[in-house]
Amino acid sequence: MDAIRHRRQNPARTELRRQQVLTAAEACFCEDGFRGASMADISRRAGMSTGHIYHYFRSKEAIVEAIVERDEESGLQLIERLKGSDNILETMIERVDDCMVDRPDITKAALLLEIKAEASRNPVMAEIVRDCHNRIREQIEDILKAGQAQGSVSREIDVTAIAVFLITLWDGITVRLAIDEDVDRNAMVATIRQAYDRMLRPGKA
Amino acid sequence: MDAIRHRRQNPARTELRRQQVLTAAEACFCEDGFRGASMADISRRAGMSTGHIYHYFRSKEAIVEAIVERDEESGLQLIERLKGSDNILETMIERVDDCMVDRPDITKAALLLEIKAEASRNPVMAEIVRDCHNRIREQIEDILKAGQAQGSVSREIDVTAIAVFLITLWDGITVRLAIDEDVDRNAMVATIRQAYDRMLRPGKA
Repeated sequence: MDAIRHRRQNPARTELRRQQVLTAAEACFCEDGFRGASMADISRRAGMSTGHIYHYFRSKEAIVEAIVERDEESGLQLIERLKGSDNILETMIERVDDCMVDRPDITKAALLLEIKAEASRNPVMAEIVRDCHNRIREQIEDILKAGQAQGSVSREIDVTAIAVFLITLWDGITVRLAIDEDVDRNAMVATIRQAYDRMLRPGKA
Repeated sequence: MDAIRHRRQNPARTELRRQQVLTAAEACFCEDGFRGASMADISRRAGMSTGHIYHYFRSKEAIVEAIVERDEESGLQLIERLKGSDNILETMIERVDDCMVDRPDITKAALLLEIKAEASRNPVMAEIVRDCHNRIREQIEDILKAGQAQGSVSREIDVTAIAVFLITLWDGITVRLAIDEDVDRNAMVATIRQAYDRMLRPGKA
């Protein structure tokens, strides 16, 4: 009993187990879709009992929430790195390829797409996705305002509209990466950089 | 027998039945996802026997192919209307709101997203979606070249890269419409018009 209690109270171990469940769930959702993959499938893949999994996540929706948050975290880190820059627009333009390369590999892009498809008919998941979208939008707005304050981003733009536009564009990029392995990533990076430049640079925008 | 043969040979009736199946399938896929909806569900919804449905479509994938083609058709019609314009860029900019209003309502947007999510793990569907994408890309390239020839679209742009960018952007818009009912459509239309203007107008691009 003491050993069990000790294990339960070990936060590093709990975190490790949670990550193990998330990784198994990502693989199951990618293969069979959100509805096709059951908690039993996920637990089998994670090498745990189903009861054990419910100890970490109360439902499949809670697992999705954690997956979305893990993805959001990597998006927020990209935005965070912009904060220290003394030319935010240049750094945004420079970092476009990091966003393409670091972030959604094909499998991950497909999973995010699956989650968004499910969100369109599942109100709980729609709320998870919308909350995440709103947090990211606010962060992008802040970065754009910081760029305006330092003079690297045009003061003429509507920061909210542009933030929504950028999220929309990156959602589209996720779709493209998910369904087209042969997409010309270099051409795409070049075109996105042009879009950033033409829509945000002072004197152009 | 003659009556049956007669019905089978009536193309208008066949087309009507096919459309009836497609409409039922769209509703089933929207509610339960591609994998969640069976041919039996679709036939129940369409008010036909399952055997009868196989007379019109050999598989769920064939139904999806027809749904994608129906959507492609409406996209191609939008492009077609641009062909007669003596200022293709202006007409593209003008028509952005038609594309938002005419085309993907929330339910349809969700279905297209579902199809793309499934395409990311189903090679047959990936090919259907990719073929459709390639046909639309070629049409957009042709329109952009026609715009360049008449002088309304910058000759400096890479027509293939811009065509892929436009498809990517509209995929993103489909995602946004599917998961966020409250999206500010007017602000979105304004920002997309800016993007078209800044990326395509001679002297700017």
